[in-house]
Amino acid sequence: MRIILVGYGVVGKGVTTILARKYTEKVKDNGFSPKIVAIADIDGAVINPRGLSPEKLEAIRQRGYPISADPEFGHKGMPALDVIESVEAEVVVEVTPVNIKNGEPALSHITRAFKTGKHVVTTNKGPLALAMPALTELAEYNNVYLRFSGTVGGGTPMLEFAKKCLAGDKILAIRGILNGTTNYILTEMSQNRVTFQEALANAQKLGYAEREPSMDIDGFDTACKVVILANWILNKKITLKDVDRTGIRDVSLQALDEASKRGNTIKLIGSIDGDKATVKPTEIPKNNPICVSGVLNAITFFTEFAGEQTLVGKGAGGIETASAVLRDLLDIRHKLATKILA
Amino acid sequence: MRIILVGYGVVGKGVTTILARKYTEKVKDNGFSPKIVAIADIDGAVINPRGLSPEKLEAIRQRGYPISADPEFGHKGMPALDVIESVEAEVVVEVTPVNIKNGEPALSHITRAFKTGKHVVTTNKGPLALAMPALTELAEYNNVYLRFSGTVGGGTPMLEFAKKCLAGDKILAIRGILNGTTNYILTEMSQNRVTFQEALANAQKLGYAEREPSMDIDGFDTACKVVILANWILNKKITLKDVDRTGIRDVSLQALDEASKRGNTIKLIGSIDGDKATVKPTEIPKNNPICVSGVLNAITFFTEFAGEQTLVGKGAGGIETASAVLRDLLDIRHKLATKILA
Repeated sequence: MRIILVGYGVVGKGVTTILARKYTEKVKDNGFSPKIVAIADIDGAVINPRGLSPEKLEAIRQRGYPISADPEFGHKGMPALDVIESVEAEVVVEVTPVNIKNGEPALSHITRAFKTGKHVVTTNKGPLALAMPALTELAEYNNVYLRFSGTVGGGTPMLEFAKKCLAGDKILAIRGILNGTTNYILTEMSQNRVTFQEALANAQKLGYAEREPSMDIDGFDTACKVVILANWILNKKITLKDVDRTGIRDVSLQALDEASKRGNTIKLIGSIDGDKATVKPTEIPKNNPICVSGVLNAITFFTEFAGEQTLVGKGAGGIETASAVLRDLLDIRHKLATKILA
Repeated sequence: MRIILVGYGVVGKGVTTILARKYTEKVKDNGFSPKIVAIADIDGAVINPRGLSPEKLEAIRQRGYPISADPEFGHKGMPALDVIESVEAEVVVEVTPVNIKNGEPALSHITRAFKTGKHVVTTNKGPLALAMPALTELAEYNNVYLRFSGTVGGGTPMLEFAKKCLAGDKILAIRGILNGTTNYILTEMSQNRVTFQEALANAQKLGYAEREPSMDIDGFDTACKVVILANWILNKKITLKDVDRTGIRDVSLQALDEASKRGNTIKLIGSIDGDKATVKPTEIPKNNPICVSGVLNAITFFTEFAGEQTLVGKGAGGIETASAVLRDLLDIRHKLATKILA
C-alpha cells in the first residue's frame, strides 16, 4: 500500500514513526505492507516512488523544517495538490491543521485525492464538520474509501466501537466529553476552585490550550466531533451549523459549587438525541462513568439491548492519533481484500 | 441460520426475545436470517425443523416450565445431547448454568456440537475456564467457530473491543472489575460504611448475590473471565488453576477507610500482566476511569500506541447478555460469508 502523507506536524510525525516500525515487523497484519512514497508539507515535498526507507524517514524527522531540503528526494516549493495529483499511490493521509472556516487546505487535498482515485485517511475535523454528507457521497461516487477515526477521541476508537462492537444492537443516543482542553479547565475550576480565566491561563501554560482558545472553549471542536458522530454512527445528514452550541466561558465557580452539593459536576457535553445535536455545559452525576477528569475524553452510547456503554481514553496526542491512522489504513486494506474476493 | 438453543433461563429467554424481533425486521443485517429450530431444557425439548415462529416462542415463554409440554412440538424428557445430535442446525447456542467443577453439562453440549459440525455460541464460563485451550483447538479441528462474547462483560463488548477496535496496536496488559456482585458489596462497604457481612446480606436480598455466594466473593467468577481474556486476547494458554486468586472476604472497613484517606478505594481487580494472571482486592485511585460503582463492570486495556482504553458497562442481565449472543451469531454469519467468497 503506497501512501502520500500530507502534513508533517505532530500527528504526521507520529504516522511516520508507527509505519516505519510496521515496515520491520516480521508478521504483517493481513499482508499489510505500507510504504510512504511522499510527504508534502507547507515548504514542499519529499518523494520517492519506491518508498521512503525507515532510515530516510528518521533523517527527515531529525532535520525537521523544511522537509524539502532533503538532498536526495526533496522538491522545494512543490504544492501538496501537485504531489497528490502526480505521485502514484493508493492512499492519501491528510493531517494538516484544522480550519473550520472553509476547511482548507484539507478540503482541496481530500477532493483532489478522490478525483485521482485515491482513498483518504484524515484526522482533520474541518472538512468533515463543514461538508460531511457531501464528502461521503463524493467518496462513494469515486469508488474510494474515506476514513477518519482520529477525528474523534484521538487514539480512542470511539467511531470503531460504535460501528464494530454493537452489531445487531441499536444506538439510541450518544453523549460525550469530547474535548480535553475544556475538560481540563472545568476539572481545575471544580477541584482547585480557580476561576475560568485562571484555569484557561494554566491550560495555555501547559500546552493544553491554544493562544487563541476559541476553537476549544466555545465548543467548536466538540461540535465538529458531534457532526462526525451524527453522520457516521446515526446516519444524520448534518453539518456544523446544525449543532446547537454553547461553550464554557460562562461556567461560574458558584454553579460548580451548587452542582457539587448535589453530588454532581458540570462538564461540556456533546450529544445527539433524536434529531437534536447539542454542545453545552451540562450537570452530570460525579459517579457516572462518563464523568472523567483532566484531559481525558469519554463517550456513552445508549443502546437498545446492551444498555449504556462508556468508553474512556486520551482524546489527543501525536502518537495516539497516529495509531488511529494506522487502524484506518488496516481497515481500508481489509475492505479492499474483501472487495477483490467479492 | 438454524439455531438450537440449549438452556432456557434468563439469558435463553432473552435470546428468543431478541431473535423473534430480528425475524420481523424488514432489513436483515448482511442477509442474517435466524431461525430457532429447537430449544432444549432440563425437562425436554421443543423442536420444529422449519423454525419456531415468534408466536410459538411467545407461547413457550408464557407457559414457562416445562417447555416440553408444548402440545405441537414438545418432546418430553428428550436429552439436550440428543437434540444437538439429531436436529439439523448450523449453530448451537449454549446458555445453561455455570459449573466450574467439571464444566457440565455445557462441556458435553459444546463438544457434541463440534463433533456434529455445528458452530457454538455460549455465555457459559465453566467449560472455557476449565479447558479453553483444548476447546479452541477442538473447534479448529472440526472446522467450526466457537464464540463467547457474553462470558465477559455481559452485554458490554469487552472481547470484541480488544479484537476489533485496537487493530495494529499491541495490548500490553489488561485490568478489570469483572464481577458486579463484589463491586456492589465493596461499593456499599465504602460508601455506606457497612460490614462485609451486611453488604453481602443486602446483595442477596436484592438478588445481586446467590445464596451460595462463593463463586462471586471468592473471586472464581472474575478468575474465569481472566482466563477467557488471557486466552482470547493475549494468546496465553492458561486455565482456571493458573490464576492467582484472592476474594473479598477479608476486605475490612478499616482498610477501605485508610485507602480513602489516600484518595483511593479497594476493588476486586482481575489482571493479566506478562505471564501473571491475578485476581485480588487492589487499591486504586478513585479518579481512575476503571473505578466504577455499584454493579457496573469496567476494563482497561493498556496499549502500546493509543494509551489506556477503558470500557464501562453493565456486566450482567438477561437481555444484555442475549445481545452478546446476537453479536456472536452475526460474527459467525459474517465469517461464513467471507469464507464462501475465499
